[in-house]
Amino acid sequence: MNRISKIVLFLLCVASVEFTQAQRIQSEGLAAIDNKGNFEIYKFTRHPIGDNDIFIDILYAGICHSDIHHVHEDWGKTEYPIVPGHEIVGVVKKVGKNVTKFKVGDYAGVGCIVNSCGQCDYCKQGLEQFCEKGMVVSFGSHDYFHNNELTMGGFSKNYVVSEDYAIKVPANANIKKVAPLLCAGITTYSPIHFSKVSKGQNVAVAGFGGLGHLALKYMVALGAKVTVFDITEEKRQDAYNMGAIKYVNVKTPDELKKSQDQFDFILSTIPAAYDPMMYVKMLKMGGEMAIVGLPPTDATPNIPTTSLIYSAHRKVYGSLIGGIPETQEMLDYSVANNIYPQVELIPATPEAVEKAFKNVVDGKVKFRYVIDMSTLK
Amino acid sequence: MNRISKIVLFLLCVASVEFTQAQRIQSEGLAAIDNKGNFEIYKFTRHPIGDNDIFIDILYAGICHSDIHHVHEDWGKTEYPIVPGHEIVGVVKKVGKNVTKFKVGDYAGVGCIVNSCGQCDYCKQGLEQFCEKGMVVSFGSHDYFHNNELTMGGFSKNYVVSEDYAIKVPANANIKKVAPLLCAGITTYSPIHFSKVSKGQNVAVAGFGGLGHLALKYMVALGAKVTVFDITEEKRQDAYNMGAIKYVNVKTPDELKKSQDQFDFILSTIPAAYDPMMYVKMLKMGGEMAIVGLPPTDATPNIPTTSLIYSAHRKVYGSLIGGIPETQEMLDYSVANNIYPQVELIPATPEAVEKAFKNVVDGKVKFRYVIDMSTLK
Repeated sequence: MNRISKIVLFLLCVASVEFTQAQRIQSEGLAAIDNKGNFEIYKFTRHPIGDNDIFIDILYAGICHSDIHHVHEDWGKTEYPIVPGHEIVGVVKKVGKNVTKFKVGDYAGVGCIVNSCGQCDYCKQGLEQFCEKGMVVSFGSHDYFHNNELTMGGFSKNYVVSEDYAIKVPANANIKKVAPLLCAGITTYSPIHFSKVSKGQNVAVAGFGGLGHLALKYMVALGAKVTVFDITEEKRQDAYNMGAIKYVNVKTPDELKKSQDQFDFILSTIPAAYDPMMYVKMLKMGGEMAIVGLPPTDATPNIPTTSLIYSAHRKVYGSLIGGIPETQEMLDYSVANNIYPQVELIPATPEAVEKAFKNVVDGKVKFRYVIDMSTLK
Repeated sequence: MNRISKIVLFLLCVASVEFTQAQRIQSEGLAAIDNKGNFEIYKFTRHPIGDNDIFIDILYAGICHSDIHHVHEDWGKTEYPIVPGHEIVGVVKKVGKNVTKFKVGDYAGVGCIVNSCGQCDYCKQGLEQFCEKGMVVSFGSHDYFHNNELTMGGFSKNYVVSEDYAIKVPANANIKKVAPLLCAGITTYSPIHFSKVSKGQNVAVAGFGGLGHLALKYMVALGAKVTVFDITEEKRQDAYNMGAIKYVNVKTPDELKKSQDQFDFILSTIPAAYDPMMYVKMLKMGGEMAIVGLPPTDATPNIPTTSLIYSAHRKVYGSLIGGIPETQEMLDYSVANNIYPQVELIPATPEAVEKAFKNVVDGKVKFRYVIDMSTLK
C-alpha cells in the first residue's frame, strides 16, 4: 500500500468512525454507581437506529425486584455505572426504514428481552428467553449484535430496539400502568396459562408483591378461587380488594393450619429465602407449583428429592418471563381485560429511586413503583 | 376387691396372656443384627391370625435396595435384630373367619404396606402409603394395630396380614419372579401411568437396577422409545435385549452429548447421590421427571429452584410405591402382559444374603435377587 492509499484509508476510517458516532443515540438516565444502590444521573450513548429498529421516547419505567438484585450484586458481579429498568413503555419517535410493526406516535413496550439469535429452535418457537446463543437483556447485558456494548435500561430518556423485540401497546391502554406488565405481567401470566388455571380451581400465590398481585388478578379473572400467602398484615385488605378468597399471613402459624392438600396450582413469586416444600405440601395430588421468584444466589431455596417423594405426585417447575409472542398476547389480554398493576408513580430522581429500592426490599411497596421518566432533569 | 376376687382376677389374667401367647405365630427368618449388614437366623413370633387376616407360607422374597438402606441405617436408626423383606410372595395356609378375598392354597403377595387407618381421605382413595396416621410397613415398623410390635419382613418363613393389604396373585403367575413386583414393580408402574407414558413418546429411565429394568419393560410395553442411563458398561446389552433404543453410560461424557431437550418423561430410580438437574435438562419443555430413588439421607440430592427456573416448564415430582388397589392393578397387568423382573434366585442363608446386599450396593445384580425361602434351614 502506498503512502497516498494509506492516507485515504485513514481519512475514510476517521470519517466512518465519526459518521457512526454521529449516529449513536445520546441518552441520559439514573445509574446505580455501586452495589449499595446509590444512584446518579448519568449520560451515555446507545447504538444507532438500525433499519429494523425503533427509537422510543420513554414515558414510564417500572421498578422490579430483579433491578434491585442486579444492582445489589445478588446474582453475581455487576458493571457500574448501570442504568437498570426492564419494564419500559414509551412513544415511538423514529423508525428504521424496514420497520413495519410500528409507526411514529405509537406506544411501544420493552421488557427483558431485547435481542436473541433468531435462528435456534427456541427463538423460532418464540421462546427467545432460552435462546441457545443467549438472549440480550435490556440492561447489564453485553449486546453481541452491537459490538458487545453494555445495555443500559429503562430508567432513562430513550431506548433503541429492533421492532421484533418491542411490544405493541394499544392506544387505549392505561399507559401509566403498562410498564410493569412487561416483566411482572408476563412472568406470572405465562405459568398461569401453562398450568391451565381455570374457573373454580383452588389456587394460591405465595409472595404478594409486584408479581404476586398481578398473579392474583390474572387468576381471579380466570374464575379461580385464589388464596394469597405473604408475611405481612399490611396487605391483607388489598388481597381481598383484588378478589382473593383468603389471605394467609405465614408468620401466624394458626393461619397456616389446614393448608395442606388444598390447591390445584400455586405460584411462588417469593424473592427471598423460604422453604418451597411448605408450599408443595399444600398442593393436591396432581397439583402443580410454578416457581418464578429468584432469591439472591446465596439464598437459593432447595427442594430435597426425598421430600418430593414423600409429597408424591405434586409437580414443581420453574418459569422464566416469557417469549416475545406470549408477552404480546399477555399485553393485549391485560389491556382488553383491564388488568393492570397497582402502581405508585415516583419522580425520576436518584433520591426517589433509592428510597423505592429500599421499600421494595422491605416489602412495603403497594404494589409497583413506576418512574415517571418525563420528570428526569 | 376381696382376696378371692383378686386371686380369680390374677388367674384370669394369666390365662388370658397364655391364651394370647398360644396363638402368636412362631416364625423364623434371616435377621440383620447390625448396620454392617451381618445376618443370622433368628426366631421370633408374629401377632395371632385375626378374623380378617391370612397366614402366608412364604415362598420367595425379593431383595430391594430399601432393605439395604434400612439395614445400613442410611435413613435413620434401625432396631436390631431386624428381618427385612417387603417383596413377599407365598401360599395362603390359613384364613380368618371373615376372609373372603383368599382361600387356602391361593397365592398371595405382600408389599410395603401391611396396615393403615383405613379412615382418612388417603386410605379411602386407596392411597394407603399416605395414610394420615401413618402406614404400617412390612418390616421395621411399630404396628399400632398390634400393640406396637415391631414388624418383621419377608426374609422369613411366614407372614400374617389382613386380607385388605394382601395382593391376589393369579395362579398362572410365574411365581418365582412375582415378589419384586410388589415393590420395584409398583414403584415404577405408578409414575409411568400417572404421567401417561404412551406409544411413540421419547422417555428415559435413569438408574438401571431392580426398579430401572422394570421401568424399561413397562415403558417398552406401552410403545414408548426408551433410553436407559446408568454408570456401567456391564448392562448395556441387557438394556437392548429388554427393548431400549439407546443406552447411555453417563460416565462417558461423549455419550451424554445431545441429551438435552429430548424426553417427554424421565423416571429416576437412582439410589445414590447424583445431580437431578442433569436429567431435568434432558426433558422437553412440558416434560415430566418422576423421582422414586431414595438415596441415603446424607446424600439426598437437592434441586435448586433457580436451576428449575432456568430449565423452565420442565416438571419434577416424586412418587412413593403405590396404594393397594394400584398394586393389585399392576400385578394383574404384569402377569397378563408377561412382564416380570429378571431374577437371580439365592438360598436363604446369611452368607448368600450378605453377598447379595454387597452386590446390590455395587450395582452388580442382574437385576433382582430373590431369596428362595423354602431353603431356610
